[in-house]
Amino acid sequence: MLSQIPSKLDIVTSHLRIQDYLKKTPVLFSEEINDQIGADVIFKCENLQKIGAFKARGGINAALSLRKDDLQKGLCTHSSGNHAQAIALAAKLLGTRAYIVMPHTAPKPKINGVKKLDAEIIFCEPTLQAREDGVEKVVEKTGAVFIHPFDNYDVIAGQATAAKEILEENTELDYIFAPVGGGGLLSGTALSAKYFGKNTKVIGCEPEGAADAILSFKSGKVEKAPFVKTIADGLLTNLSEKTLEIIRNGVEDILTVSDEEILEAMKIMMDNLKIVIEPSSAVPLAVLLKNKERFAGKKIAIIISGGNVDLESFGLKI
Amino acid sequence: MLSQIPSKLDIVTSHLRIQDYLKKTPVLFSEEINDQIGADVIFKCENLQKIGAFKARGGINAALSLRKDDLQKGLCTHSSGNHAQAIALAAKLLGTRAYIVMPHTAPKPKINGVKKLDAEIIFCEPTLQAREDGVEKVVEKTGAVFIHPFDNYDVIAGQATAAKEILEENTELDYIFAPVGGGGLLSGTALSAKYFGKNTKVIGCEPEGAADAILSFKSGKVEKAPFVKTIADGLLTNLSEKTLEIIRNGVEDILTVSDEEILEAMKIMMDNLKIVIEPSSAVPLAVLLKNKERFAGKKIAIIISGGNVDLESFGLKI
Repeated sequence: MLSQIPSKLDIVTSHLRIQDYLKKTPVLFSEEINDQIGADVIFKCENLQKIGAFKARGGINAALSLRKDDLQKGLCTHSSGNHAQAIALAAKLLGTRAYIVMPHTAPKPKINGVKKLDAEIIFCEPTLQAREDGVEKVVEKTGAVFIHPFDNYDVIAGQATAAKEILEENTELDYIFAPVGGGGLLSGTALSAKYFGKNTKVIGCEPEGAADAILSFKSGKVEKAPFVKTIADGLLTNLSEKTLEIIRNGVEDILTVSDEEILEAMKIMMDNLKIVIEPSSAVPLAVLLKNKERFAGKKIAIIISGGNVDLESFGLKI
Repeated sequence: MLSQIPSKLDIVTSHLRIQDYLKKTPVLFSEEINDQIGADVIFKCENLQKIGAFKARGGINAALSLRKDDLQKGLCTHSSGNHAQAIALAAKLLGTRAYIVMPHTAPKPKINGVKKLDAEIIFCEPTLQAREDGVEKVVEKTGAVFIHPFDNYDVIAGQATAAKEILEENTELDYIFAPVGGGGLLSGTALSAKYFGKNTKVIGCEPEGAADAILSFKSGKVEKAPFVKTIADGLLTNLSEKTLEIIRNGVEDILTVSDEEILEAMKIMMDNLKIVIEPSSAVPLAVLLKNKERFAGKKIAIIISGGNVDLESFGLKI
């Protein structure tokens, strides 16, 4: 288990440790999108990762970093989203148990996703306090190890492997764009850009309706969003001390977009890339569309964070 | 230009000729789908190909096989769908003109796709006669070369390269499943399975609402479907003499499914593979779901033919 900011060797080791458990996700591009933006854009498809999100990387890495006797006691987390499935998958792959504290208001597809992976779900009220209390009880009772969704250096090192894979096959990147919620993906991306890139800069992409990271980035303290209301349900959380420190040192800028801009980008991506993405994954393209001039002519990679979206809630009937 | 059934060398040459113009499409899989079927299934994602469909392969191959002075006169075809975009793309890439005769009832994304590629569209009534008449007029007027969507050995050799790519990376396949409309993809797949597979069998997958291929396969003559009514808009056409001959010699079986079964498979693929597919592309998985016992434990590749679907027509509002 890492007790400080992951080094280059830590990320290389993490990648070797997890890669047999994961899918090698493809990188896609679209001439139409390039034409529309006037830049050379590639998309790293973590929506095509196991559990449909990059979170599998960090969850499996953190689980594999535990001592064997700790691992055997089980894994525990609270999450209403992709991290819950990541921990459930890690437990299943490594032959241990997962205890997931979930608000009873969590969307059914996400509850079902966790159930299918044989995790034990402990429902709670939809407040942070109730979730943390739930975890505490589970840990007390079972001895399971709590794995935080992002305030954990092994999780960050795992998430960093997505950008590492991009940079191994695309050595001349000017920028990597990643969405930012708690900052696990963005901080890992910043580390990989520093270690494996050639002057590759990183841009954090945030919804206006959960604009905490941009504030924290400026003030240097973990700030809350002025208000929380966005379609990008994967990006509601605040940064943590660990992710903020890395992001302040390694990210060039954090840029925000409205829900309208996010939805427009989501449609463009589904139409042109022919992939299913969750709204959070459209935030980086929305940022790029909004700031075309700044990034004109650049070679840019966008990390598509996940594809766990209930398209029925957008009216789809198949 | 090929005047007989493509040989192994013809397909190898075709592949070399076209590959710089195309995307190398990824192969995806889903543990959930494997569990549901009880087989080991991989999906070759031609929906992620240029123009969103495998047809780019055959169209570009046929265009590149023309003499230079013929090519300069332009390309012409009739198609309501992906072949239209393939010819438009081929013309654009090779610096010539494309004339596309399209029924005015063609799906919007397909019309827009052709327009974006700068082809000239000639709208006609949605009958085969009107389409053929339209082409005849264009050829007379412009001297453009007509490229048939499937009754053309260069087109067939191009489509064969999808299965060739699958077999190069997956040498131990028991089966390849491909949808069948006019039979360009299915006949090409049958040839590649014979030339590049190790006892790899091919199954043609057809909607009950356009069940001509199964009849032709049995009788040995090009038959019409008893009725045409299916959601799989890419598979409405009859076979041709050329495709039927290859299919009869190289395909193990043709199996049919209902629209209900196609839609169920489409939903499963979008939910689990996180990709956008057109209904025609769901036909092979629907066949597999319907015939689980027959294919239990087998290693199977499914060719996803395309992703050009108007999800708004399925209610999606983004």
